[in-house]
Amino acid sequence: MIALGLALLAAAAVPQAATPAAAPKSYDPIEADWRAIPDDELMLIDLADGHRVAVRLAAAYAPAHVANIRRLARARWWDGESIYRVQENWVAQWGDPTEQKPLPPGITDHPPAEFEIAEFAPAQRMAKADGYSTASGITADGWPVATDDTAAWLTHCYAMVGVARDAAPSTGSGSELFTPIGQSARRLDRNYTVVGRIVAGMAYVSALPRSDATMGVYATAAERTGIARVRLASDLPAAERPHFQYRAADNIRFAAAIAHREHPDAPTVPTGANVCDVLPAVRPTP
Amino acid sequence: MIALGLALLAAAAVPQAATPAAAPKSYDPIEADWRAIPDDELMLIDLADGHRVAVRLAAAYAPAHVANIRRLARARWWDGESIYRVQENWVAQWGDPTEQKPLPPGITDHPPAEFEIAEFAPAQRMAKADGYSTASGITADGWPVATDDTAAWLTHCYAMVGVARDAAPSTGSGSELFTPIGQSARRLDRNYTVVGRIVAGMAYVSALPRSDATMGVYATAAERTGIARVRLASDLPAAERPHFQYRAADNIRFAAAIAHREHPDAPTVPTGANVCDVLPAVRPTP
Repeated sequence: MIALGLALLAAAAVPQAATPAAAPKSYDPIEADWRAIPDDELMLIDLADGHRVAVRLAAAYAPAHVANIRRLARARWWDGESIYRVQENWVAQWGDPTEQKPLPPGITDHPPAEFEIAEFAPAQRMAKADGYSTASGITADGWPVATDDTAAWLTHCYAMVGVARDAAPSTGSGSELFTPIGQSARRLDRNYTVVGRIVAGMAYVSALPRSDATMGVYATAAERTGIARVRLASDLPAAERPHFQYRAADNIRFAAAIAHREHPDAPTVPTGANVCDVLPAVRPTP
Repeated sequence: MIALGLALLAAAAVPQAATPAAAPKSYDPIEADWRAIPDDELMLIDLADGHRVAVRLAAAYAPAHVANIRRLARARWWDGESIYRVQENWVAQWGDPTEQKPLPPGITDHPPAEFEIAEFAPAQRMAKADGYSTASGITADGWPVATDDTAAWLTHCYAMVGVARDAAPSTGSGSELFTPIGQSARRLDRNYTVVGRIVAGMAYVSALPRSDATMGVYATAAERTGIARVRLASDLPAAERPHFQYRAADNIRFAAAIAHREHPDAPTVPTGANVCDVLPAVRPTP
């Protein structure tokens, strides 16, 4: 299983798998490559069963929806709600399953669409186009982006967080959120607002029981995973705040990491890579 | 959540989600499009907890490894073994965790590599290249294939089944098998032998608890999911055999299904598709 194992360790985008190689390689990060996730860009979802899910918010890319999400967290709107939808090879979704709970004051019910971002400005580009875009890459601050040469957007990779919504023109308020738990949900690109990425706790969310009911929405309340509370780290007492760092992409080491993924060492036959294969590692601040 | 729901229902490659639209569309299958999976190409993995996983074997694409797998099943080699590795956003793997169990007579310990297939002959092609190949598509008999114009191979999509192995030149015997449970494992293409696809029970396998241990191999025997028995359907009494059908791809309806995935109805903005997004539906034989 050695080769399969190495392929995995190199692949994973979750903190516990971001194990550095024994001896430093050209593609290993140096300490300066690790940058702090600001407290007000870190949303903590504490589940009723004690598990914690941490979401890095894409505040610079979806400002209107992230503003709503911050207001919802400060209003404790999600406290007592649940993860109510887990659909096989698609998404896990949380919020208010009734969609009837009033939104707190100050929330824009349907913000302007933020399905796309201002510009395609990756620090590192993937060598090849993929089936969903003409070019893609990772921004300096660690987000996956793509373009068709007319527009740019954040991509729906595994563990990214999107805003669920009704049929267009709804953009969603940010109260109902989802994360892809299976193969890429890239077909949602440019059609849903991407507001963040799960940077801790994803291994728990991805292993929640699937529902066979329509759209994977649990048929009974008993199947749901309760949400005890959702808070911004910045709203917690300083002593209670967890801290995370992401690996920045604007350096030759990250460029080498992508190149190594696209051209692994022999005897592995290179078959390329997708932007979702090279999401920057995130780690608890040492 | 309507739009997200529809996106899902159209997307899923698992039986329970292959719900036909209310009114027939150009991309809906007709009865003649459903073809039986032969009993000797259907492997049933009955787990100790009562769940059943059904694997369609790619007998025509990896004959040496499938021959081994049939011998292992007939020798009841997997009975009492387990799913011993579940690594977040990578693979679930089963067989003998000690890798010490002797193989039964007649097994070729290291068959010739079947990482690639004889020819790239899809019945339907994807419109765009992806990050892993210059062209890809679905064969008439429902398998995902890709090429770089020099070679062809079955792709490591979600729920496909591959042969775990040690470092090259090992090709694996087929006794240790894995399935991708997260984002695409396409980087394994041309480096591991693809022997099948899980066509029932994947929603259970994908929700097994992840392990934080090295390579996701459970640190304790208690974490493993036991395998009660593995049998070919053809080795069960006729009355006990389940039957499944796959949707054939060599027809205009499947071509329309791919086109609809690549160019969904307005107002959805089309962003393309990947061969792993269009795996043919499989259903229990009505």
